[in-house]
Amino acid sequence: MLTGASRSVKYGMAGARAPVRLRAMTSASDATQTAQSSPVLDTARRAREAAAVLAPLPRTARDGALLAVADALVARTEEIVAANAEDIAKARAAGTSDSIVDRLTLTPERIAAIAADVRHVVALPDPVGEVVRGSTLPNGLDLRQVRVPLGVVGIIYEARPNVTVDAAALCLKSGNAVLLRGSSSAYASNTALVAVLRDAVAGAGLPADAVQLVPGQSRESVKELMRARGLVDVLIPRGGASLIRTVVEESTVPVIETGTGNCHVYVDKDADIETALKILINSKAQRPSVCNAAETVLVHAGIADTFLPRALAALTEAGVMVHGDETWQKAGPGMVAPATDEDWATEYLSYDIAAAVVPDLDAAVAHIRRWSSGHTEAIVTTSQAAARRFTQLVDSTTVAVNASTRFTDGSQFGFGAEIGISTQKLHARGPMGLPELTSTKYIVTGDGHVRG
Amino acid sequence: MLTGASRSVKYGMAGARAPVRLRAMTSASDATQTAQSSPVLDTARRAREAAAVLAPLPRTARDGALLAVADALVARTEEIVAANAEDIAKARAAGTSDSIVDRLTLTPERIAAIAADVRHVVALPDPVGEVVRGSTLPNGLDLRQVRVPLGVVGIIYEARPNVTVDAAALCLKSGNAVLLRGSSSAYASNTALVAVLRDAVAGAGLPADAVQLVPGQSRESVKELMRARGLVDVLIPRGGASLIRTVVEESTVPVIETGTGNCHVYVDKDADIETALKILINSKAQRPSVCNAAETVLVHAGIADTFLPRALAALTEAGVMVHGDETWQKAGPGMVAPATDEDWATEYLSYDIAAAVVPDLDAAVAHIRRWSSGHTEAIVTTSQAAARRFTQLVDSTTVAVNASTRFTDGSQFGFGAEIGISTQKLHARGPMGLPELTSTKYIVTGDGHVRG
Repeated sequence: MLTGASRSVKYGMAGARAPVRLRAMTSASDATQTAQSSPVLDTARRAREAAAVLAPLPRTARDGALLAVADALVARTEEIVAANAEDIAKARAAGTSDSIVDRLTLTPERIAAIAADVRHVVALPDPVGEVVRGSTLPNGLDLRQVRVPLGVVGIIYEARPNVTVDAAALCLKSGNAVLLRGSSSAYASNTALVAVLRDAVAGAGLPADAVQLVPGQSRESVKELMRARGLVDVLIPRGGASLIRTVVEESTVPVIETGTGNCHVYVDKDADIETALKILINSKAQRPSVCNAAETVLVHAGIADTFLPRALAALTEAGVMVHGDETWQKAGPGMVAPATDEDWATEYLSYDIAAAVVPDLDAAVAHIRRWSSGHTEAIVTTSQAAARRFTQLVDSTTVAVNASTRFTDGSQFGFGAEIGISTQKLHARGPMGLPELTSTKYIVTGDGHVRG
Repeated sequence: MLTGASRSVKYGMAGARAPVRLRAMTSASDATQTAQSSPVLDTARRAREAAAVLAPLPRTARDGALLAVADALVARTEEIVAANAEDIAKARAAGTSDSIVDRLTLTPERIAAIAADVRHVVALPDPVGEVVRGSTLPNGLDLRQVRVPLGVVGIIYEARPNVTVDAAALCLKSGNAVLLRGSSSAYASNTALVAVLRDAVAGAGLPADAVQLVPGQSRESVKELMRARGLVDVLIPRGGASLIRTVVEESTVPVIETGTGNCHVYVDKDADIETALKILINSKAQRPSVCNAAETVLVHAGIADTFLPRALAALTEAGVMVHGDETWQKAGPGMVAPATDEDWATEYLSYDIAAAVVPDLDAAVAHIRRWSSGHTEAIVTTSQAAARRFTQLVDSTTVAVNASTRFTDGSQFGFGAEIGISTQKLHARGPMGLPELTSTKYIVTGDGHVRG
């Protein structure tokens, strides 16, 4: 057994390994080493080339391209709006709901706002080159761990053309090439926007292929993207749960899972009633359609008699339908729908809330562990011990103490921008800003150092 | 388009989404939400329960268990050695090579060394609870991002029983439950070791299920582990390339890829010849069987006439066979085997090296981009400009300037321990120490804060 100076060898993959031919190691689905060709893979290859050019560029070059993008969006508003009109006409013809059409719609005002957001991204600190760790080792070697771009970032997203620009801006800012795979219902808009982006990027002297739309509108093009391991460094699926599930299940490219939020508000025995009401209503009803809205309220039995009537009144006034357990049903006869396991499991995204009374804090934690999607859970309490125990035991991206669940958000957290909210534990957890779009590399500098 | 205070909504997954039933969202292969049962899944479920108990424990509790483990390993050496003898007998009967049998062998001395390593892990700083980011937001909310255990870590590894203890120790130290899936040829040893570990952990008052051997010796048990998404938080495959490929391809559990090292030494035009020779020989021949050993040397054409004869002499003296391009072949007639693309792609792990002359630094970088596994590349140069350009352009976990590739190692980097070397860009890149076995969560503390 190796100890001391050689313990590293023990951990670090030593012993009599067989030679590895890296070609042989890759499979037919590993796109790096094969000559496999397709419109999607060729796009990814061009992105990889562009990423190699982007990585060493200084901030000024990337910022310059982003400013050019902002200007071009405004200058070419007319053609963007015209393309967008095609998508809107199709959506209307397909009987798409007004709210979806509204998300799809670009107006000159909205395009100006998108351009302003790009300028806002320019002003954010540069994550690339940040030294994360650094020390001089005992043997005199200088060790630095620095942030570097991930390389090629693939984003699969919903029918919101603004995301096309936002995602491209965040990726460019962090030195990444981006592959955009938007909803087919925004295809004309995205095509127009990406043309503008590419022209502006190229005009600023950067490779146009730093920004590309994934060709094809079928699910097949998504599948190809998911198999482009070695060409694409990470895939970030946003939007629908079934899409996210598919990507997680089938992608060989590393994935960052985003977005599902079955968030809870727990009202402790020692809660201040007014604070609890305020946080409950804000968490549920301030904007019910978003992932950080609350979907379940759990109330300590010791405060239920006082809290439930007040909460029912407030929720009803806010237009929220309560799906409650027996205690809630008794507290509001005729006002409360009976809750089933399906309610505990549901992210309503609407003016509905599941509601239960729990015997104590640990029971609330157990309920959350079983049913939460691990996004955000809030506790309302005046007890320091309860706050401490809840934050220790709850295993979610964010635990809020005496604050609304609605704060889980890159902008609210002061990150300046956000590409999504990761609900997985690897790489990034919670709101993802610019640093989460980077990896790191170690730089070791010596003057002829060798291992003894 | 939303700006200012509401830009978060724009990025953060807003709009009229349909309600999501989380049960419906999960598929048959998502083990969390299904009642699916099997020995492997049941083991993973117990690990998940244990992880919930471990997460909030203070350092003293985890350290206490580790000290108990170290003592128990020494106290129960006899039964461990006896179990190990079974594995050795089987290996010998199967005609296993001496070096593999040596890796498999446990002696009282080696067990004492393993126990000493566990005590060394106890002494390392606790990664759990470290505040990674923290600030008071403009609205007075306190924001903290703290390190938390990942939860359940699955390790799939080669026939080295010491890894059983090392991995368990690192996982326990970082508050994780561990699922150990060692080689079937070490099954008796691992079974004995895990029995000792579990008894010691339980004796220290922690859940025994914090350390479990994955039941079954077939490939099926690995496959089940790979589909235990929702129960297992990360899988770390170590060892053989084909195993790692299988896990990367088929796992729905997030994976950290480790280990393949097709490392390069680039000798620049402005290299000091003696330094270059020293680094080349150390990188290649100090321990050729490990992932951070060099497999290819690239030499700038401007220094080839001087360097190649010296390098050939030194490599030959070190017992290294050179597989070279035409220039190398001409420099050492009869000494150099002709290199093909297969040589550039091969991780020899032996006393062989591929060798080429390149016209300039950028050509060296291009060769590395094409053939490297992204582990470690070294440059030898006296030119600050060359060093700077090489470190900027090379996209590997580690870039060494005037230092051997052999330094890429958790212990050499001063991390105190290492669970593997990640060659992927997500979550961890390069040697992984204790912080890499953690995730983070945000804790937001207010006094009734709601969003306006």
